[in-house]
Amino acid sequence: MELFAVPDLPEVKPGDDLAALVGARVDLAPDDVVCVASTVVSKAEGRVKTLDDFPAGPRAREIAARLEALAGEEKDPRFAQAVLEESTELLMEAPFLLTETRFGHVSVNAGIDRSNVPGGDLLLLPKRPSESAERLRGGLDADRVVVTDTCGRPFRHGQRGVAIGWAGLPASRDWRGERDRDGRELTATVESVVDELAAASNLVAGEGAGGTPVTVVRDFDFGDHAGSDELFRDVESDFVRQALRGWRYEG
Amino acid sequence: MELFAVPDLPEVKPGDDLAALVGARVDLAPDDVVCVASTVVSKAEGRVKTLDDFPAGPRAREIAARLEALAGEEKDPRFAQAVLEESTELLMEAPFLLTETRFGHVSVNAGIDRSNVPGGDLLLLPKRPSESAERLRGGLDADRVVVTDTCGRPFRHGQRGVAIGWAGLPASRDWRGERDRDGRELTATVESVVDELAAASNLVAGEGAGGTPVTVVRDFDFGDHAGSDELFRDVESDFVRQALRGWRYEG
Repeated sequence: MELFAVPDLPEVKPGDDLAALVGARVDLAPDDVVCVASTVVSKAEGRVKTLDDFPAGPRAREIAARLEALAGEEKDPRFAQAVLEESTELLMEAPFLLTETRFGHVSVNAGIDRSNVPGGDLLLLPKRPSESAERLRGGLDADRVVVTDTCGRPFRHGQRGVAIGWAGLPASRDWRGERDRDGRELTATVESVVDELAAASNLVAGEGAGGTPVTVVRDFDFGDHAGSDELFRDVESDFVRQALRGWRYEG
Repeated sequence: MELFAVPDLPEVKPGDDLAALVGARVDLAPDDVVCVASTVVSKAEGRVKTLDDFPAGPRAREIAARLEALAGEEKDPRFAQAVLEESTELLMEAPFLLTETRFGHVSVNAGIDRSNVPGGDLLLLPKRPSESAERLRGGLDADRVVVTDTCGRPFRHGQRGVAIGWAGLPASRDWRGERDRDGRELTATVESVVDELAAASNLVAGEGAGGTPVTVVRDFDFGDHAGSDELFRDVESDFVRQALRGWRYEG
């Protein structure tokens, strides 16, 4: 399996044909997985906004006031408003906002990015990233596309790449029912391949000025396994979310 | 960047020289990252145990009785005892055991594996996986080694590869202070490269009978960044762990 970055992608602007920009810079092979950072997908899709687009309501003002008191520095209630509008559940409101976005992804600040956004204050995540992936797949004539994000996690420091949208392959492969070397049945092994592809992609993509938002994974063999498109947990299967519902930060 | 599996590794047994077994099957290049599944490290290090090695104390019997009542099927208190002995904190005791292992890794059942273990009932994680990585690095004359595990996570279905030990590279690279395309300083970007390497490795390693526990990542460029070896969070920085401390499963 091989990974490489697509070189020389220009700054992406709202309305740009991202598939054309990428397609002009790479020769794709069958089964290639094109991993595209959500930032450039969002830019092309016009998800650049300004704080003025989000006049703060009472809930956002309440959240920002509490964060301001905790942090001892100014917090813009319009940012809290933007996060709320992008979310369907608020999992934590302090010491930072952790929410479930409309499409099921749990992340800090609903994944809204405040850096790397010429012409605006805010870069929202794509509205429906798997639909974005499907459109890019069509436009690129690629077999497989993953839209990636980078985010932190409990238990472990640091961020890693994760998938937020995918097309042309299932989110995971299912090894359950297959057997180990001694013939015993494997029980609980559903492997989130799109997240692993996103993580692998992040190793060659980088961040910041030298970052390359599009990479290609070549010769990834999904193998002969069942697949599933369930990536985002609901609260029933997520004990951490259940625990967070009853918890309040007091620091 | 390229990834490939090391072929034809035999079944690893306690006392085997794992570095020699691997070294005979691959020609390593400078800067290669050898990713080794914790299962084979544990086997070579004799971490194969039987349930009889863990006579259950009162706490283990209490935990098993509760899990038995919840699941409606028999639970061996000796397994709970093994998990407790491998752990320094019990984060959840139902509907499954989630603990912090001695070396800081949070996982279900302290990462104890009940499949794929000829000659025993249980396969414990390596005692100090970064020391294992360092020994393998020496024995293989490899530049970089990552010991991997596979585990689930909150918010997302499925499992993905993670690092539990590493040698020859830092756990993460630090992009803070570097600049984006518009010259703005990047704020919160510490990238857990060892976890991303473990995830990438898992894509080519597979599970079960056809699984290949050792892979090589070639031409991974860490770049000119600061690094850090902090991978496992303490409770101060981990709000999910704080929330779990106050939570009890009532399902």
